Amino acid sequence: MTIPTDPETGEFVRSPNHFAARITADGRDGWPVEPGRYRLVVSRACPWASRALVVRRLLGLEHAISLAVADPIQDERSWRFTLDPDGRDPVLGIRFLSEAYHKAESRYDGGISVPAVVDVPSGKLVTNDYPQITLDFSTEWTKYHRDGAPDLYPERHRDEIDEINRAVYKDVNAAVYEAGFASKQSAYEDAYSRLFARLDQLSGRLSGQRFLVGDTITEADIRLFTTLVRFDAVYHGHFKCNRNKLTEMPVLWAYARDLFQTPGFHDTVDFDHIKRHYYQVHTQINPTRIVPVGPDLSGWTTPHGREELRGRPFGDGTPPPPPPADDVLSATE
Amino acid sequence: MTIPTDPETGEFVRSPNHFAARITADGRDGWPVEPGRYRLVVSRACPWASRALVVRRLLGLEHAISLAVADPIQDERSWRFTLDPDGRDPVLGIRFLSEAYHKAESRYDGGISVPAVVDVPSGKLVTNDYPQITLDFSTEWTKYHRDGAPDLYPERHRDEIDEINRAVYKDVNAAVYEAGFASKQSAYEDAYSRLFARLDQLSGRLSGQRFLVGDTITEADIRLFTTLVRFDAVYHGHFKCNRNKLTEMPVLWAYARDLFQTPGFHDTVDFDHIKRHYYQVHTQINPTRIVPVGPDLSGWTTPHGREELRGRPFGDGTPPPPPPADDVLSATE
Repeated sequence: MTIPTDPETGEFVRSPNHFAARITADGRDGWPVEPGRYRLVVSRACPWASRALVVRRLLGLEHAISLAVADPIQDERSWRFTLDPDGRDPVLGIRFLSEAYHKAESRYDGGISVPAVVDVPSGKLVTNDYPQITLDFSTEWTKYHRDGAPDLYPERHRDEIDEINRAVYKDVNAAVYEAGFASKQSAYEDAYSRLFARLDQLSGRLSGQRFLVGDTITEADIRLFTTLVRFDAVYHGHFKCNRNKLTEMPVLWAYARDLFQTPGFHDTVDFDHIKRHYYQVHTQINPTRIVPVGPDLSGWTTPHGREELRGRPFGDGTPPPPPPADDVLSATE
Repeated sequence: MTIPTDPETGEFVRSPNHFAARITADGRDGWPVEPGRYRLVVSRACPWASRALVVRRLLGLEHAISLAVADPIQDERSWRFTLDPDGRDPVLGIRFLSEAYHKAESRYDGGISVPAVVDVPSGKLVTNDYPQITLDFSTEWTKYHRDGAPDLYPERHRDEIDEINRAVYKDVNAAVYEAGFASKQSAYEDAYSRLFARLDQLSGRLSGQRFLVGDTITEADIRLFTTLVRFDAVYHGHFKCNRNKLTEMPVLWAYARDLFQTPGFHDTVDFDHIKRHYYQVHTQINPTRIVPVGPDLSGWTTPHGREELRGRPFGDGTPPPPPPADDVLSATE
């Protein structure tokens, strides 16, 4: 995998999301909400895709939006369905996610990313616009939410959620990649500094409240969680985000365990996919492709004590039931 | 730097020490103990050399055996005296340690390693046999030990010390390199398993006694210390020895801090040299040469509580005074 960096500054340059159509209740972009019509393609390794996995689970959208899981190891044609029989996604019938991208735009030559939402009848990619995908699950698919689904993007808190999301994106979600993919010391150190300054600030905020905004789980928590759950397994060593492990940051560690132990979170996490993806795909920073045996992950299921801060994880709603049988992770941990 | 590995097994192959003459009280190898005659060449980055630094300090041999400190970054000619004015060791007058190797054996084409003891008058390397160098400091240089020097290799405990040293060498000192330099997953996993099994066993042993053998600091503690002090700074991430950080292994972490806080230990440790050496020299496992900012090292000076286990660090002796002025580390932490 080639990691694009700025030759002057050594900073990692993230590709923009090219396909930004929205699937909406009113269908104004030509893609109306319709159960059974769309397929969410993810890698369980990918933090951006994992947001969509968590939101889909919490809202009970498994029955409305089906799921394709790509192999955690991309090849030169990017994400592949090599985990499926004959190496093809059984619903879309394709071997590579790129085929859906090219059905949507035959001359497309940009990056192939997950999460991706594909229109099953036409086989065309609709969107890879990950920040919008989860918000639309929350606000456009309401008709198909399960009974007891939480409101992950409550209107009265949207400004605050958006503000935190911007800071968490810049200094946490993206900063870990900028640290790991930097080609110059200064670019790495800049990302590292922003990351730990923000984590300290978030620790302060979360020391007195159970969740980031209001007293319930929101989109903001999901976006922070998907980075934290990968922190010790990959970002600490592989991306050199090593001031401390998550396990050494008591507030964030308890916060992350609280979410991990909440139905809808841990059942989306596959540490084997996570570790193999990062360590085997980024040969420019791990040329041996050796995957660490550690870290010891047993701490994730230990008591977190955050109930003391009260908070109502699902607000007036309820936790999701276990995932549908065809959606369950292969047990890897 | 080329890392030699077995093409079949992917195991790291360590070069043997070629120069094994001994400097003894009776001079039987032609190299008699004589104060002012020999120069110890080290890198403060190197765990093998650091054993000699600690032993020299504890025994007060600074006045009998002078010290040359190589740049932590080797180039293609290996260890260099680029920290000294004009890039030459002021006593030996050489720019590269290899010059002393070649004075001793003009056709030598093996590895150039530290610690190395050089005969100042002739400029010839005498020995790079690191396991023997420290034992000879303890047993052959006794006439020049300071008043109050501890007995680091007491006769009545030698069998036990030798036995522990063998296990610690195989499963700790060398195993971290075997994990980090493995070119195949199986070779890495073998080293990782042996390492943590041994650390667990040592934790058990040290939970009830302050030092590894008897009730005083011995050679065995020094050999374990030089690996432990590098554990979180380099072996955890760079060498993928990441089941836990040292800070997460309570007995070993307290034990290591106890030694670190003992005069003669911390004043030999230079975390800047350590980190830059490992991360900048091993381009085969860290091609970007970026040096992590972390870990947070402030914990090293926190109370360790090991006094409760009693033990007499220096036996009937005393701690060493501060190092001579020309021997002090540049403050980097």
